[in-house]
Amino acid sequence: MDTQQIVLASRPVGSPTIDNFSFESIALPPLQPDEVLLEGLYYSVDPYMRGRMNDTKSYVPPFQLDQPMLGGVIAKVIESKSPDLNHGDIVFGMLPWRVQTVTSAKGLSKIDDSNVPISYHLDVLGMTGMTAYFGLMDIGKPKVGETVVVSGAAGAVGLVVGQIAKIHGCRVVGITGSDEKVKLLKEKYAFDEAINYKTTGDLKTTISRSCPEGVDIYYDNVGGEISDAVISNINFHARIPLCGQISLYNSTEVPVGPRLQPMLLTRSVLMQGFIVINYQSRFPEAISHLAKWVQEGKIKFDQTIIPGFDQLPSAFLGLFKGNNIGKMIVKA
Amino acid sequence: MDTQQIVLASRPVGSPTIDNFSFESIALPPLQPDEVLLEGLYYSVDPYMRGRMNDTKSYVPPFQLDQPMLGGVIAKVIESKSPDLNHGDIVFGMLPWRVQTVTSAKGLSKIDDSNVPISYHLDVLGMTGMTAYFGLMDIGKPKVGETVVVSGAAGAVGLVVGQIAKIHGCRVVGITGSDEKVKLLKEKYAFDEAINYKTTGDLKTTISRSCPEGVDIYYDNVGGEISDAVISNINFHARIPLCGQISLYNSTEVPVGPRLQPMLLTRSVLMQGFIVINYQSRFPEAISHLAKWVQEGKIKFDQTIIPGFDQLPSAFLGLFKGNNIGKMIVKA
Repeated sequence: MDTQQIVLASRPVGSPTIDNFSFESIALPPLQPDEVLLEGLYYSVDPYMRGRMNDTKSYVPPFQLDQPMLGGVIAKVIESKSPDLNHGDIVFGMLPWRVQTVTSAKGLSKIDDSNVPISYHLDVLGMTGMTAYFGLMDIGKPKVGETVVVSGAAGAVGLVVGQIAKIHGCRVVGITGSDEKVKLLKEKYAFDEAINYKTTGDLKTTISRSCPEGVDIYYDNVGGEISDAVISNINFHARIPLCGQISLYNSTEVPVGPRLQPMLLTRSVLMQGFIVINYQSRFPEAISHLAKWVQEGKIKFDQTIIPGFDQLPSAFLGLFKGNNIGKMIVKA
Repeated sequence: MDTQQIVLASRPVGSPTIDNFSFESIALPPLQPDEVLLEGLYYSVDPYMRGRMNDTKSYVPPFQLDQPMLGGVIAKVIESKSPDLNHGDIVFGMLPWRVQTVTSAKGLSKIDDSNVPISYHLDVLGMTGMTAYFGLMDIGKPKVGETVVVSGAAGAVGLVVGQIAKIHGCRVVGITGSDEKVKLLKEKYAFDEAINYKTTGDLKTTISRSCPEGVDIYYDNVGGEISDAVISNINFHARIPLCGQISLYNSTEVPVGPRLQPMLLTRSVLMQGFIVINYQSRFPEAISHLAKWVQEGKIKFDQTIIPGFDQLPSAFLGLFKGNNIGKMIVKA
């Protein structure tokens, strides 16, 4: 039986383009014991995947040339030779960008699709929610009355971070890239302030006005000059969870900027990089909180769902243009 | 009664010079209740004092022009109107650079001078030891078998950090600025490796060779390009206590360098600035450990003791030329 897959055709230099991907038809192998045949339903596209397109050592190995892209996928079991999964079950896994795929049942987690739309499991109840929760709660450690600044605020992680911070009694300021997103953050998501960095002349001063008592937690999704401006307003004993650096992912040279250490030193600031997998043993804790907050209406969210498996490359490229509000998902 | 004091005559632009200081004769006021008349015995000069010579907001207020410099001083009580202190007592305090001074007894701590030389209380049993201990133990959290790199390794704090790390079963690599100091670190202080950054062409590669399993803890006293080289060898889940940035203190423009966040992010690294006063409530814990290690001969140290109150400015300037091995102290 044949299926379609999307492979990394060439490594991008700077910003990735549609030409870095190509579509192929491949034959699926017959099922072996403990394997399942899956059909993809929802595909997650995430900024961190840009790093895997480079041939550099990181916390995850690089994608291989002429091999399929890999990402978070929610899929339906079509056929099973595993005692753990049955036809019709819905699963989550890190899977190749294929219409159908054959894979070991190990590494797949079964999803309960009775309570919430399936796509939530790629979002607030999935890696996105875990990333927001642990970065803010474990590294940021918000306290009532503190000021939290979130960059990439209208992105999948940013929206959840801001709302968890509000639940914990913080003043929340979001930085984003359009007036439409500013409006959304303030009206739908109850951010105390939101700043369009593209139209704000002096970002440092604008942040200072939005944060009259300084910045206690800076949840950083973007890096670069936006982060410089936030960090120049950082408070004594502040915490900076480093979640993403999307503004730098397409750099072709080593990004240069003001040295941070003098500021971190004189203000006793903690800065910590993390990846969500560090917290795997504590995922149930986060899911129980997040599911409760979603049910109570305390966490709302947006998803940008693009229909069509063949739209995966362009949906991914759209992340770097800020095309998404909330989680960017491709629906097969 | 008159005494001599050293005041900040002008603020340095870039490297401080002897002309930034001036000597004055002043009249001491009569003693009021709860005050003591002190005579300085040992004066601490420390790199962080450079920051206070600028008129910028920091964790301690700037020195005022035409007012005396302030620092850690061990002094003898000459006359007392305090019920807590008697003639002949030895005390530590943050005091002006004066031959004699009148001050409140509050804020002075009495020193037991029966067991160890008095000057140790400006060093391993004083702020230097506290700084080394809490930065390494509380932020660095060393584990047996880990690799610890210390910059400014032959300085007061660096020597103690390296030895505490050895006590905890770590491989210790020091970075310093002369062959004499390299020899001392390896022979007297049992550092596993020591590197003279001034004569090493490719510091990044040299560190990589000295740390075949990467760097788990980088105790940073210097900042700048030395730190860039260490951080390029940093391990997953590493910790970077920021204690000092002496290489940048005399910069006249905002220092620029490679952006750190991508590296900290992809390797889940923690970087944390601190000042020793954050740990004041836990000083007794550190002192009890350090005093024991000193008695057991597990912590050795050097002091560079310069005689003469009038040598205070030049001793301070010498810190930025690497003139000291271990703690730089001026003996009245």
